[in-house]
Amino acid sequence: MRKLARYLPVLDWGRRYDRGALSNDLIAAVIVTIMLIPQSLAYALLAGLPPEAGIYASIVPILLYAVFGTSRALAVGPVAVVSLLTASAVGQVAEQGTAGYAVAALTLAFLSGGFLLLLGVLRLGFLANFLSHPVIAGFITASGILIATSQLKHILGIHAEGHTLVDMVGALFANIGEANLVTALIGVAATAFLFWVRKGLKAFLRSLGLGARMADIVTKAGPVVAVVATTLAAWAFSLDARGVAIVGDVPQSLPPLTLPDFSVDLIGQLAVPAILISVIGFVESVSVAQTLAAKRRERIDPDQELIGLGAANLGAAFTGGYPVTGGFARSVVNFDAGAETPAAGAYTAIGLAIAAVALTPLVYFLPKATLAATIIVAVLSLVDFTILKKTWGFSRADFTAVAATILLTLVAGVEIGVASGVLISVALHLYKTSRPHVAEVGLVPGTQHFRNINRHSVETDPRVLTLRVDESLYFVNARFLKDLIHDRIVEGCEIRHVVLMFSAVNEVDYSALESLEAVNQLLTDLGISLHLSEVKGPVMDRLNKAHFLQEMNGQVFLSQYDAWKTLTSVQERRAAE
Amino acid sequence: MRKLARYLPVLDWGRRYDRGALSNDLIAAVIVTIMLIPQSLAYALLAGLPPEAGIYASIVPILLYAVFGTSRALAVGPVAVVSLLTASAVGQVAEQGTAGYAVAALTLAFLSGGFLLLLGVLRLGFLANFLSHPVIAGFITASGILIATSQLKHILGIHAEGHTLVDMVGALFANIGEANLVTALIGVAATAFLFWVRKGLKAFLRSLGLGARMADIVTKAGPVVAVVATTLAAWAFSLDARGVAIVGDVPQSLPPLTLPDFSVDLIGQLAVPAILISVIGFVESVSVAQTLAAKRRERIDPDQELIGLGAANLGAAFTGGYPVTGGFARSVVNFDAGAETPAAGAYTAIGLAIAAVALTPLVYFLPKATLAATIIVAVLSLVDFTILKKTWGFSRADFTAVAATILLTLVAGVEIGVASGVLISVALHLYKTSRPHVAEVGLVPGTQHFRNINRHSVETDPRVLTLRVDESLYFVNARFLKDLIHDRIVEGCEIRHVVLMFSAVNEVDYSALESLEAVNQLLTDLGISLHLSEVKGPVMDRLNKAHFLQEMNGQVFLSQYDAWKTLTSVQERRAAE
Repeated sequence: MRKLARYLPVLDWGRRYDRGALSNDLIAAVIVTIMLIPQSLAYALLAGLPPEAGIYASIVPILLYAVFGTSRALAVGPVAVVSLLTASAVGQVAEQGTAGYAVAALTLAFLSGGFLLLLGVLRLGFLANFLSHPVIAGFITASGILIATSQLKHILGIHAEGHTLVDMVGALFANIGEANLVTALIGVAATAFLFWVRKGLKAFLRSLGLGARMADIVTKAGPVVAVVATTLAAWAFSLDARGVAIVGDVPQSLPPLTLPDFSVDLIGQLAVPAILISVIGFVESVSVAQTLAAKRRERIDPDQELIGLGAANLGAAFTGGYPVTGGFARSVVNFDAGAETPAAGAYTAIGLAIAAVALTPLVYFLPKATLAATIIVAVLSLVDFTILKKTWGFSRADFTAVAATILLTLVAGVEIGVASGVLISVALHLYKTSRPHVAEVGLVPGTQHFRNINRHSVETDPRVLTLRVDESLYFVNARFLKDLIHDRIVEGCEIRHVVLMFSAVNEVDYSALESLEAVNQLLTDLGISLHLSEVKGPVMDRLNKAHFLQEMNGQVFLSQYDAWKTLTSVQERRAAE
Repeated sequence: MRKLARYLPVLDWGRRYDRGALSNDLIAAVIVTIMLIPQSLAYALLAGLPPEAGIYASIVPILLYAVFGTSRALAVGPVAVVSLLTASAVGQVAEQGTAGYAVAALTLAFLSGGFLLLLGVLRLGFLANFLSHPVIAGFITASGILIATSQLKHILGIHAEGHTLVDMVGALFANIGEANLVTALIGVAATAFLFWVRKGLKAFLRSLGLGARMADIVTKAGPVVAVVATTLAAWAFSLDARGVAIVGDVPQSLPPLTLPDFSVDLIGQLAVPAILISVIGFVESVSVAQTLAAKRRERIDPDQELIGLGAANLGAAFTGGYPVTGGFARSVVNFDAGAETPAAGAYTAIGLAIAAVALTPLVYFLPKATLAATIIVAVLSLVDFTILKKTWGFSRADFTAVAATILLTLVAGVEIGVASGVLISVALHLYKTSRPHVAEVGLVPGTQHFRNINRHSVETDPRVLTLRVDESLYFVNARFLKDLIHDRIVEGCEIRHVVLMFSAVNEVDYSALESLEAVNQLLTDLGISLHLSEVKGPVMDRLNKAHFLQEMNGQVFLSQYDAWKTLTSVQERRAAE
């Protein structure tokens, strides 16, 4: 039972579910449902899909996550960055608006779900760590700019496609002549209103005497107000006849049963984007879930999260949706509104199902420009260039990775941008370890502690050279160490003992072992002894297995101080003789 | 002048050249020339080129290396592994025996030379370190098997093409019916004779009273004996009329001036193989050069070696050759024969030029089966599976990389094999660093030294948790540390101080900084202090820059012993109050 509960967290919290949790969850669900209706429509638009796909993607996936997920506050569904990635991936295999496009989106969700499940079952969640925080921050910032730019066409009422900033801006300028004045008025007004809601409304409500939490929740309902107002305007003045693009007919139905396309060709084309979407969605989702869990002293299990998100995506694939993940905005609202358990998600799903059956006719007159405005305002809050400044001050390597990610995402597209970020991070890390810091150390007077002779005033002995190697020794730097010791020995002709202080050597691989053997040979030929000190357990075990310690012409000392005492007193005794 | 001498090592040794060095160099050159004639013909055969290409590739490249190279013993020219790689790369763009094939080989040498020069000028020689020793050893072993198998067709006198072991063996079995009995007799006899020369001749000569060095040199001349004997037999009995493939007409001329094909298409197809050939050739060459230099207490400069080998390959490209590098066998013979300076190489080049003009008619009747036999015997000495056993006993990661390299080279070809070896090595290294070893440490009684509580009997204090983190902290393991401390804190409820001993933390990147900030926040919330000890200079500088040390709720101690004294005495005082 406990083992089962690990894979089905619902068994754990479900048993303790009570009336208090029920009422809290219900209230949270109502608030989240109201917020999700316009958001789901908008993100479907961003993904290039019909509006109902956004609502369908919010129903069954939420239910499945409630059963398999470990976060109590995470709200799963369509999110901005994943919608952008979907549009970019599916746009390469099918034309927007065709049936093939929608089926390709289902296939993408299916592949993404399968990949997440696989990672979860194999407990490979740590792979997501290869996407470093700065790279993600850079990617999200660049994606926000791309998304906002992509929505300008709806605000202006023109046609303009493209997956990179240059393409989009070029297309906007080329077609600016088509712009529809009424659409632009609605779009600009909605955008301005939503910005005000986000920046000024809360303070205004507080000044009217509203409580902080209530003011917060009313603020989050801003998009609903914009949706209702512009829909009524479009209906009252028949704006669709004046060229304003509206949402139009949305089928009144529960999520349909759908089948992805399992053709080998399509799977081959979508496999890499699916992996990318999975990893980015997972990382975004886990960081939201961890942030919220930490606030309530709860924990989430990243490997189980993979299974929860995998199930949610498979659910989306078979019920007319597209790739989903845990969203930041919706999860924070859910959390702030007081959701206690994943059941809040289930109630949200029910609310959205009711909306899908009953409320879809009401959005017939909703202008697409309003949806674009909600997207623009939502994603611009993701744009944050301070990561560039923060990393610049901290390390050039981090800065390079972020800057490259932002630049390449904007000019070469999302896939190339994020893949380059990962590769550049790894390459820079390997480069740094290829030329390790090696400090010559001496005894800090009055202690048993040894530090860099260039940074501290320490005692040294010309006959004993002690080098602290500040890196694991492995194939990338194996030759470096050998050359360094060779050069250092040639300089100091009084040297009789070389001590390698291994306190920072966390690993020795076979190439490094060969280098150490060569160093030992070189020193033996020169009549110099080679000693090691402060060798860690795992490294010691390995050197022992390879019989290096027997081959070595000197000793292994437990501490550097032991080495110092032994070697310098030998010297003194010899000098005295 | 000194600066120039760095780029033109000839200026350095040339000034001190004297009569003693001249006579030693001349003797070495005669011996190497005799050895190189059959070897050059054989390797050209292996590369799929006409026999003269092997000789041409040994003339101008040697001269250029003598000017630009730093090793005094390295002999540059065609080698087995690079010949195999050439056959594999050029075979994909042209048909063997056509003019296009020879021109593609020139282009490959040109690209490879250009790439080596570029790396040398940018001083990027360290990139070769990514090919770890075990991966190279595995690759050379697998290549040796591939090469030996590829020569069986010449031994049997049948047609059989293929670039993987499976293809080759399949083709051999399919065409075994074509086998020519006389060819097979010559091939098997030559192979058996050469094996005996290698294994038994030296002892036999010694038993006849010959000196060790002389016996060695005579042994190296074995292939010449096989060549002369089988050529005479083929001439005397007109074996070519009985179906024995012979070398035939070889033009009598100095190396011709040739031009590579600079078409964008061909360059695109050969760029990746050229990079591979450069890197493998460079690594093989540098390790031979370093081994020989160490024996005479000399040093080579890897970056200058890149320039020397780059010039040699460009030379090969414009004088009818194909990619070259420093060969193991020929360099050892050169060294053993007493070569003192690169001038020995220049004399060898002159010897080969004379051979190209005067001796080529003599090899008209040389059976190809004899050349195949010299190749088989030479490469089987490269096959050494002990690397599998050695790495198995040392570390599973090294073993996995070697085993994968051998297997993939045999079944999927040389390019995939060696590329997989590099990628697997890097991936396994990153995997290891993603889950670092973290030891809880305590004070070794009577010292100021701290060790793992599970390996040593040490003093601890339940209120002070000291963790020694055995890895640099960077994005791949940033989350791991945070989770680990979280779990550890939940277990021990008496803990009041957490000390992170940073003696093995060689780097902290931006992601890890964020993790440390999160840990500090978590501990602050729980009323626990976070301290650091033994922080290295470079890490300290960086944490200072990011203002983390000011944010941190505890202190930074120079040594772990300081931390222990301060924190436990605080505890004792409080307990006493």
